[in-house]
Formats: sequence, C-alpha cells, structure tokens
Amino acid sequence: MKNSIGTSVILTLFGESHGPAVGAVLDGLAPGLPVDEAYIAECLARRRPAGPADTARVEPDRFRILSGVYQGRTTGTPLTLVIPNENVRSADYGQLEHVARPSHADYAAQVKYHGFQDPRGGGHFSGRVTAGIVAAGAICRQALAAKGILLGTHILRCPGVEDAPFTDVASEVKRIEARRFPLILDLEEQVEAAVLAAKQEQDSLGGVIQTGICGLPAGLGEPWFDSLEGVLARAVFAIGGIKGIEFGAGFALAGLRGSQANDAFRMQDGRVVTSTNRSGGINGGITNGMPVLFNMAVKPTPSIARTQQTVDFVAGRDVDLSLTGRHDPAIIRRICPVVTALVAVVLCDQLALRFGTDYLAQV
Amino acid sequence: MKNSIGTSVILTLFGESHGPAVGAVLDGLAPGLPVDEAYIAECLARRRPAGPADTARVEPDRFRILSGVYQGRTTGTPLTLVIPNENVRSADYGQLEHVARPSHADYAAQVKYHGFQDPRGGGHFSGRVTAGIVAAGAICRQALAAKGILLGTHILRCPGVEDAPFTDVASEVKRIEARRFPLILDLEEQVEAAVLAAKQEQDSLGGVIQTGICGLPAGLGEPWFDSLEGVLARAVFAIGGIKGIEFGAGFALAGLRGSQANDAFRMQDGRVVTSTNRSGGINGGITNGMPVLFNMAVKPTPSIARTQQTVDFVAGRDVDLSLTGRHDPAIIRRICPVVTALVAVVLCDQLALRFGTDYLAQV
Amino acid sequence: MKNSIGTSVILTLFGESHGPAVGAVLDGLAPGLPVDEAYIAECLARRRPAGPADTARVEPDRFRILSGVYQGRTTGTPLTLVIPNENVRSADYGQLEHVARPSHADYAAQVKYHGFQDPRGGGHFSGRVTAGIVAAGAICRQALAAKGILLGTHILRCPGVEDAPFTDVASEVKRIEARRFPLILDLEEQVEAAVLAAKQEQDSLGGVIQTGICGLPAGLGEPWFDSLEGVLARAVFAIGGIKGIEFGAGFALAGLRGSQANDAFRMQDGRVVTSTNRSGGINGGITNGMPVLFNMAVKPTPSIARTQQTVDFVAGRDVDLSLTGRHDPAIIRRICPVVTALVAVVLCDQLALRFGTDYLAQV
Amino acid sequence: MKNSIGTSVILTLFGESHGPAVGAVLDGLAPGLPVDEAYIAECLARRRPAGPADTARVEPDRFRILSGVYQGRTTGTPLTLVIPNENVRSADYGQLEHVARPSHADYAAQVKYHGFQDPRGGGHFSGRVTAGIVAAGAICRQALAAKGILLGTHILRCPGVEDAPFTDVASEVKRIEARRFPLILDLEEQVEAAVLAAKQEQDSLGGVIQTGICGLPAGLGEPWFDSLEGVLARAVFAIGGIKGIEFGAGFALAGLRGSQANDAFRMQDGRVVTSTNRSGGINGGITNGMPVLFNMAVKPTPSIARTQQTVDFVAGRDVDLSLTGRHDPAIIRRICPVVTALVAVVLCDQLALRFGTDYLAQV
Repeated sequence: MKNSIGTSVILTLFGESHGPAVGAVLDGLAPGLPVDEAYIAECLARRRPAGPADTARVEPDRFRILSGVYQGRTTGTPLTLVIPNENVRSADYGQLEHVARPSHADYAAQVKYHGFQDPRGGGHFSGRVTAGIVAAGAICRQALAAKGILLGTHILRCPGVEDAPFTDVASEVKRIEARRFPLILDLEEQVEAAVLAAKQEQDSLGGVIQTGICGLPAGLGEPWFDSLEGVLARAVFAIGGIKGIEFGAGFALAGLRGSQANDAFRMQDGRVVTSTNRSGGINGGITNGMPVLFNMAVKPTPSIARTQQTVDFVAGRDVDLSLTGRHDPAIIRRICPVVTALVAVVLCDQLALRFGTDYLAQV
Repeated sequence: MKNSIGTSVILTLFGESHGPAVGAVLDGLAPGLPVDEAYIAECLARRRPAGPADTARVEPDRFRILSGVYQGRTTGTPLTLVIPNENVRSADYGQLEHVARPSHADYAAQVKYHGFQDPRGGGHFSGRVTAGIVAAGAICRQALAAKGILLGTHILRCPGVEDAPFTDVASEVKRIEARRFPLILDLEEQVEAAVLAAKQEQDSLGGVIQTGICGLPAGLGEPWFDSLEGVLARAVFAIGGIKGIEFGAGFALAGLRGSQANDAFRMQDGRVVTSTNRSGGINGGITNGMPVLFNMAVKPTPSIARTQQTVDFVAGRDVDLSLTGRHDPAIIRRICPVVTALVAVVLCDQLALRFGTDYLAQV
Repeated sequence: MKNSIGTSVILTLFGESHGPAVGAVLDGLAPGLPVDEAYIAECLARRRPAGPADTARVEPDRFRILSGVYQGRTTGTPLTLVIPNENVRSADYGQLEHVARPSHADYAAQVKYHGFQDPRGGGHFSGRVTAGIVAAGAICRQALAAKGILLGTHILRCPGVEDAPFTDVASEVKRIEARRFPLILDLEEQVEAAVLAAKQEQDSLGGVIQTGICGLPAGLGEPWFDSLEGVLARAVFAIGGIKGIEFGAGFALAGLRGSQANDAFRMQDGRVVTSTNRSGGINGGITNGMPVLFNMAVKPTPSIARTQQTVDFVAGRDVDLSLTGRHDPAIIRRICPVVTALVAVVLCDQLALRFGTDYLAQV
Repeated sequence: MKNSIGTSVILTLFGESHGPAVGAVLDGLAPGLPVDEAYIAECLARRRPAGPADTARVEPDRFRILSGVYQGRTTGTPLTLVIPNENVRSADYGQLEHVARPSHADYAAQVKYHGFQDPRGGGHFSGRVTAGIVAAGAICRQALAAKGILLGTHILRCPGVEDAPFTDVASEVKRIEARRFPLILDLEEQVEAAVLAAKQEQDSLGGVIQTGICGLPAGLGEPWFDSLEGVLARAVFAIGGIKGIEFGAGFALAGLRGSQANDAFRMQDGRVVTSTNRSGGINGGITNGMPVLFNMAVKPTPSIARTQQTVDFVAGRDVDLSLTGRHDPAIIRRICPVVTALVAVVLCDQLALRFGTDYLAQV
C-alpha cells in the first residue's frame, strides 16, 4: 500500500516539501458526514509552527477540496485535499543534494530511489506531508465525535518535564487542545523553555507523547495480524521521528509480576470494566471497552545546526556538515495533532470494517 | 487480512489450542527453496516447553506438509503445514467458559464473537497457534541465510537479569540458539531462577526481548505506511504478550539531544556505514544497511495460579478466579523463536516486493 | 493475494492434484453460522465425477475440518478444510514432465516456477483444487440462504443444446441442483450425449454457463475498481477453463441501440424494479436490486486423447503428444457448483464489507 | 481498495464530473522514468471529444502534476495528476436529481450513498473520471515501451462495421493511434456514419473493442486469484459501459472441440511459441509469451435523447424522462485509449510484483 493506509477507509498521501503541494485522498468515508472547513483549519493550525520553538517556515495551509464533498457533506467517494506549498526556500538545500544528513532518510532514499528522489527539504520524507494527514483526520475526528469517540495526544514527557498521563480522556483532550502546547498539566512554559534551551545550543530535543481514545466499543480489532495494536503501530511508525510505541503500561510491564500487571475485571453499572488499565484497553489485539492508551517515543529532530560528521554518498567520501535551512528544534508539539489525526483515520477504518460502511453515517 | 500477513509472501495462520490441529499456509515463496524438515523440527524444538520454567503441556509438534513442496523443494505454490494437537486436556477449562481471565482475550473475544469462539485453552488466541509461525519461519530463515541475511532474538532483560545487546548479530545468533535459554551472555541459570521464583509464588514474569538482523540490503522499506518499522511492528504485535516495540535506542532517544542521538555516516571500505546505530538500521522507514535492531516488551503471562478478581461475563457478576490448568510462568524463552520466525517471513515478503519473486530463488 | 481472495471474508486455496491433500482456509466468516457437514458433502457430490461423461478419477472427498468450528458453528476464526487425495495415479504423468500439454498451464508454469512446480496431474493448477472452493462455498451458501440470498449456475449452452436462461432464480436453482446435469430445462440426456460423442472421438467439449443470484440488496459494490462486475470477474477467472464473462445481455448489448439496451425503471409494490434486466442487476458497478446474472465461456477441456503437436520445453524440441491418464471430456457439468461456491464466498465478503462482519451472523 | 487498483504500482482515482477537478495518484512507479508531458497530452487528446460523433462538452484537459516528478522524471513517490473541469454546465442536470436515468448508476448510487452523492453529470460515476486514467497510463505506457512492451485498443466491431483483429500488435498499434477512430482497417468513415445515424435517431450505439499487448515475458500472472485474466478483467470492468470480456477466442471457444480450440506449441528460432493463439496468450492465468489479446463488450451509451420510462426514486413514482444535456452517442472511440491506459497501469504493477520495483527503471 506504500503511501496508503486502510482497507475500508483509505488514506493516500502525496507531495514533497518543496513541490507545488502536499495533500491526501481519503476514500471510503461514509456519505453524509459534515465537512467543517473551519475545523480542518483549526486542526491544521495546531500543527503549524507557532513561535521560536518551531521552524521559521510557516505555511498558511490554504487547503482546497477537489472532490468528494457536495453541499458541505461527504459524498462517500474519494475526498481529495490539496494544500499548496507557498513558503519554499529551496536554495537552502542546494549544497546538500549528495550529503546524507545524519539520522535522516537521505541516504536510505538515495539507495532506494537511485538518486531520482526530490532532495529539496527532505522531499516526500518531509514532515510537511503530514499536513495532509491532519486535514483528512479532522473530518474523521468529527465523525467519531458524533459517535461519542474522542481522542487526543499530548506530550507526556520531555527532558526535564513530566506531564500527567490520561486519566479522563474526554475532558483532558479539551484541555490539551486549548493550550499552546499539548499538555494536560500547565507546563507550557517549561516545555517551551526546554526546547529553546536545546535550540540555543544548536541542538534539538525529543520526548514521549501519549494518545488516549475513549468511547470505542469493545470487540474492535482482530486476533493475530490485524490486532488493533498492530494496526495502530503500523500507522504511527509512518510518522517521521517516532521510534517506539507501547500500549498501556508497555515496557514497564516487562518488570512486573503477573499479579501486578493484570487488570482485574469488575462489573460497574451493569458494564464490564477493569479496575486498572495497564493493558491500554486492548486484550488479545481487541478492545475491551476501556480507554485505549499508548505512548510513542519521539526522537530529537535530526536536523541540528551543529557541525556533524557524515558522507557525500555520490562522491563516496567523508564530509562535515553544517546545516542551515529552517528546522524545528523539536517536533514534540507539532507531532501531537498529526498522531491524533492519523489515529482518527485508522479508527474510522476499523469501525467501518467491523460495523459496515454506513456506521459513521448513522443513516 | 486478519489471520494473514504479507503481500508477495503471505502467511496465514489457523487453529485452536484444543482443536484437531494448528498450522499455517505460506504462499508466494520463491520456487526451488530447500525445505529442510530437520531444521523445521529444530526450530519447533526451541519453542517447545523444556522444563519446570515452562508449561507442563508438551506437544510433540509432529508437523505434516500438505502442499507446496515437491522433491524436497518449494514449488512456489501455497505451502501448508499442519501440526496436530496431541496433548489436550480441555477439562481444565470447563468451569472457565464464561469467566474472563484478567488481561487475557476472553472478554474481548466474547464481545467480538458473541460467545461462539472456542474457549478451550484460549482457542484461536492461544500461543499454541505460534507453532505454525515457527514452522513457516524456519523455511524462510534458511532462504534468507542463503542470501547472507541472519537474524535472531534473545532475552535482553528480565527482572534481575540483564543480557548484553547485539553487537555482532551473525555470531551472536549462533550463540543464542546454542543455549537452553536465548541469551548472548551465559545467564541461563539466572533467568531460569527468576522464572522459577515467580512460579513458586504462583505468579508470572515478563521481560524485554531484542531482535537483530544483519545482511539486509539498504533501501528496503517504504516511506510512510509501509515503513519497515511499521511493517515489523504490525507483525510482532500479533504475538500475544508483546505490548511495546522500539527500534534502535527507541524510548531512550526521547531523552537525548539530537547531537547525542544522531548516527554519523562514515565511509568504511568503500561502503557507507554509521558509526553508531541508535536508529536501529532504519532511517525514514527504510534500511540504511546497518543491522536492524529492535526491542519488544513482553508482559508477564496473565495466567497465574493466585486468586484474582474478575467477572462472569454471561452472568454479569463479579467472581473470584483460581486458575488451574497448565501454563507458562513466563514466555520470554519460548517467544524468542516465534518472533524470529515471524520476522523472517516478513523479510522474505519485503525482499520479494523489492527485488521480485525470484530474488530468494537465486535463479 | 495470489491464492487468496477477499477482504473481510477471505478464501485461501492450497494443494496439488497428486499431493497429500487439497483444501482451503476460510477466514473472517461471521461467528455462529451453522456448519452442516451433510450439505458440504452434498455440494462436493455435485462436483464429483458421476459417470462416463466425466473423468475416471473419482475422489471420495472425505473432508476434515481442522479449525474454526466449535459445537457445529463457525467461531469467526479461520476455518480450515482439508480434503485428502486418495485416488492418485501419478504414473500416468511420468513421461509428461517436460512436455507442454497444449492450452494447459504446463509451459507457463515452467517459466514461472523454473521447473520446481509439481507436474503430476497439473499440480496446483489442477481442477482438483476446486474441491476446496466447493466445500468453503457450501458454508457460505447456507449463510446467504438464511438472508434470502439464493444462487446457482447451470449449463446455458453447449454444442447442439440450448438451455433456458434464468427467469426465476429462486425456483430454478432448486431445479438445477435436483438434476444429474445442472440445467433448467430437461436436457440432461442431450448434454450427456454431446459430451459422450466428443469423448468417443477422443475429443472434448466446452459451453457457456450462467450464474444467477437473487435476493441481494441494492447498493452493493463500488464505483471503479471494486465494481461488483470486476470483483466477480476476477474471482471466476481463477477457475481453469473460463475464458470469458458477460453480465446481463453482455456481448449482445454491443449490437443494440441504447433504446433497445436500456432497462426502464418502474415502481412495483413500492419497490424500484426494472422492466427488463439486460444490465444483469448491476449499474455502475453496483447492484440495483434486480437478480444478478452473468454468463461465462468454458473452453473445451484441453486434455484430449488425440495426438497433438507440442514441445518438450526442457529439450527445446517439437514432439507429438498422446495423452493417456484420466480426464474429463467436458467440465461444463462439474464447473457449475464450483462457480456457485466461489460466487457465494465473494458475496459473503461483499456483504461483510458493506454491512459489517456480523451481518450474516444475524446477532 | 475501492477507487484504487494495484499492489506494487497503485492507481487511485478521484473527482466528479462537475466538481473542481478530476485526477489520479499513481504510487509505486519505478524512479527515474521520463515524464513526457507532451505524450500525456497526446493520449488525453485521443480521449477528447472530436466532432459530431462525440459529446459537445469538450474539456481542454490542462493537467497539472502536483507531486512525484522531479527534473522531468518520476521520483518513485506518489505522482499526482490534477485535471481541472473547465467546461461545466450543471444546469442541465437540475431537474434530474431524483430521476434515475435508465441503465445509469443513478439509482444504485442513491441506495448506496443515501442521497449524498454528487448527482451533477453523473458525479463520480462520470466518464470524465477516466481522464485521470489516461494521464497516468501515458506515463506507464512509455515505461513499458522502453522494455519492448507495446499495447493498444481498437474498435473490433460496431453495428454494420467489422475491423480486422490484431495480427501484428506492434505495427497495428501505431496504425490505430494514427487514425481519427481507433481502427486497424480504414473504416473510419463507416464507424462515424454508424454513430451519427444513431445520434440522428436520438439514440446511441455500442460495440466490441479489442486490446492487444505484445512483448510481455512469459510467466507473468498467478494461478487462481491473481490470474492475469482475473486481474485485467477486474480492471476493465471499472470502466463504465463495459459489460463483458473474453480472452483469445473467448465465447467462441465454447462452441469448439478441444482439438479445434487447443493452441499447439512449437519451437521457433529457439523460442517456444504457439501456432495459433486462441488462448489469448494466457494459460492457467499466466502468460505464455504470445501476444495477450482480449475483447470487451461496450454497451450503447445509456444517455439518449428519446423519451424513456423511469422512476423518481425520492417521490417513489413512475415518470417519463427526456434527457437534454450533452452526451456521447457512442463511447466506442473514446473508451479505447482509456482501456489501453488502464491496462498499461496494470501491467506495470504485474511486472513490478514479478521482477521487483526497479524492473521498469532499468537501473
């Protein structure tokens, strides 16, 4: 599927950092869903650079819908979103064409594409492409919300700062999205300071982010190869910079005894719940009705101003690299709405597979 | 795809813990690959219970190949492996039919399958089904080895014990598989003691395992949704008990600065290498030619002898549960050959997609 | 997908003509569907050779279900059917290993599989593999019937004989399946005589078969690449010997004017119907609620006793070929239950995609 | 996959007849392929209305490439083509919103999309969407030609006119594309006259078209569900108006004896050939090295000016319909380049699956 994901609801991404546009085709969405352009713009705004802690390249994200919407609602046919690139400064990349930025895709892409890839600004590997995810995900999120399914992503941890984990997803999602930085606690200044300190030192910074989903019915997902964990993991690893994912207590479970790790089931108001949620809402690959929770490791942005050792892969020789260009000293703020959007698309797909293509349409 | 994985080389799993058999269909393998039944048996043996640290249910794994092999070699058509269940004691599960074992799939399966699932021994969710993965993976591993691609999985860490991470995959894989427990260092007794201590206390134990792959060409994988990280993650989350995956330095990257996290590229003997490998051999979703390394969190086995709180989901009431039956106090030993086998299948698929269906056939 | 078809309900075929067994894995069926082994046997019997008009190789088709059924009902997990080959006489093929039977797959398979394919009895290309389709399809047919969806396939035409086309699918399916040859009119003797005449002359015979489906809801299928026509066509071309398919009036439409070809819509008892059905129940790739009707061209069996010109593809020289072995002088009788079964599987998949995985379960 | 087709090379279509644009995303093409915009325009021109035998809606097809091309060559990442709709006259459709045009998708779409579909000009079901196929296919055709694989489609038959079938695909493709109507023989005036006669009578006309492919290697395709016949059939049934497909002699084979139908293999200049090609170059679903040939039934355009009986599906009552608007009295001319383009995409996918993603790149 390469640049597409999904079976019933399918997202296809396209575009390069310095090409005419990035965008997405979202196919298979239920017909009749409201397409709220203001909400799409709001989601895109959350991903947009917003100050000294982000890159200086600010794109207005003036998206255009080319197909799949009629009279303000989804038709059920492919919905195409195009987001022009308007603030491109390719000259910054001129000297870099054959130099592999460390921990970037440049060298891997060179081998795969034999030098025909678009190298400007990372080309198709650029985070710029995630704008299409956010726009498509905005439509999905509203469809999910209409069914009582809410989700969001926040910075759980970055060097020196520790946010609270989700405990009440529905209310915390609102809080997260109301802040300048996606955080449950009031730690915006601390996070910003950490990022700016790294930037100051011509360096960059990573962190751990957490996604929470509430309102999902139990029984979603499959045993074995379409486990919800597998499906979500495959999706989020598409996003550059994510190098790990753990569900529920994740790696911490490895250090516990079974008696400490197991989530006891209990009856509550006639429903089956668990008294803890170390499983992150998923047992055997299938939702158990508790909130789905997972953490992701976000590596520090590989583009740093400091001089680095690397190679010129065409000349085949070692070189030193001093990056100029415009880069994010950290993506932990901007990546959160991207993950949320992508997860929203995946959930629409899973629900359509399980309950049929009209499930979200509520017809 | 549900119980199938892969695009060009496709593995399909079937079977239940207490049904007549488990097994697998492996479709799309290159023709002409040797099928070494002794090696399949050897791989199955590594997964088989082997003492007091494992379950008392020991299956002989007398597999039978029903199709796809002619004169000792793959034909290129679907290869079907059937492994009868011979040591079944379903009576142990009789009283459990409606009781959700905590952190097991029972309740999620009940909602998904409306009570029609086979509950005996976990049914289709049982680790027993992984025997089919191991048998199929054995054939794939030999095909990969013929191309110089070697891989293995070891226990990196369990409570109180810390193995060395991979530094030279090719030689360490041999060492791992020569030991009674899959370990790089000579820590077998320590691991066994840890497991037996948990068992003694009617409890169970988890750990972190690590997979290493060497010999993969650079340029394998895709940007975005078929990133090698995403493809591998989706695969391994199929295996019950895995709750997290991280590539290279993974979650530790979240605490580093870019200048500490980046892998410098260098020329070495005319080849591009990196001087560190915190990326785990993957940049932008695509191999960079360095060993591919990833860790997985394995939760403690949820089946424990201690009394636990849970529900009877048919009666809709809280109950106490004291599991009898035969269970592994830890799966960290037995899961390693399963992960290796599954990753071998995934790599055969990736190589066939990239280089064509005859690549492994070497014709 | 190769030997698998379907997205939500997935059929995987395996086996070779002279290997230990043929069979199928049917994944994704709704849980709770009755599995009626007597009906499976009855469907297999319709495909079994039944006299001088068929091959002399009669297999008892003693199938065994290895997984996916518990207490007589589908579990919702992969259902594996194994049908042993019991009447194998490979000696007949000994001399043929390198000789391409004209219009058979032998030479194409040789190029594709580099000589590693199983050549005995056509190997994986043998019609024997369709037994797995019939067994799997029997389960699907009963699930469809419970929703009022009935289907069947009959010989519409063979040299010198012309059956009536479907006009009332529900009643005609019963009539077809009650006869020794699948025919709407009482033409069994005529068809048998035509086949025996061809056999007498050491030759073989083809024909046109027609499938009819009633009870399908309108709105099934997709525009463009998952048109119901495309999905059905892809399926039936899997069956050896089918060389053409046409929906509704098909090729005859090419000779008509629009005013003669169009199906007028009318209201009837509050439902939208068409007064003719030249579209075969499909408009724009999507069902319109009328019976789905399509014809398929079945070529004469390529295995004939007459001496034929061909090549030894290993020696690279022209040779004459006189086939011995056991062959069907025509497959027009035996292919009908195969097509019906395969279409039943495809419809279960389409319905699950459209209405969710529980649709057939009626829970 | 819905509006996408392919596994390694994937085409996704989007757009509506009267929306802002139609277009396509072509993902997975080998990197480094020349993208010849003049040739794309030439292919689009062949599909464009060109006189009184076509619709009066003439679109300039000023396409724009938004991604996937760098310095005139494919990058290997998704290639997005957008073709604005510039000549839209939706008023023609105003009165039709709830009236099902006979043998059109209107009613089926209404049921499927619950009235949210874009009804203007057939919306997403419009032939307008095929412009994206032609543009994408143009790039694929040039890549195939560089490997010696040539293909084309011509009108084989329409009422009163009979073209010659392919006998030498390579030279005939050139002849076909040099003519005003795609024909091997000089029958342009006859075809045009037939179409104009139908138009004169406020009616429309169908025909049979034939596609020929030469230069394909033997061994392409799979047994069972990825037979080349099945894959091609699924593709072409996406195109509105196609109601039948037959390979080689197709339905005529149904009337022959095996001795008349079989293609004898022969050695010729050291290569295996067949002395006839009634199989259409495919045996057992796999190419045998002979030209691949297939015919398709094209129904008469359902849009006719004559008054027709139909229903208002919202009011639920019978109505008479007199279509105004702009329509093709026949699509047999314009459909040929569409089929050729779509088949070219499918072949690129099949070759990439078989020989790897670099096969067409010739690196």
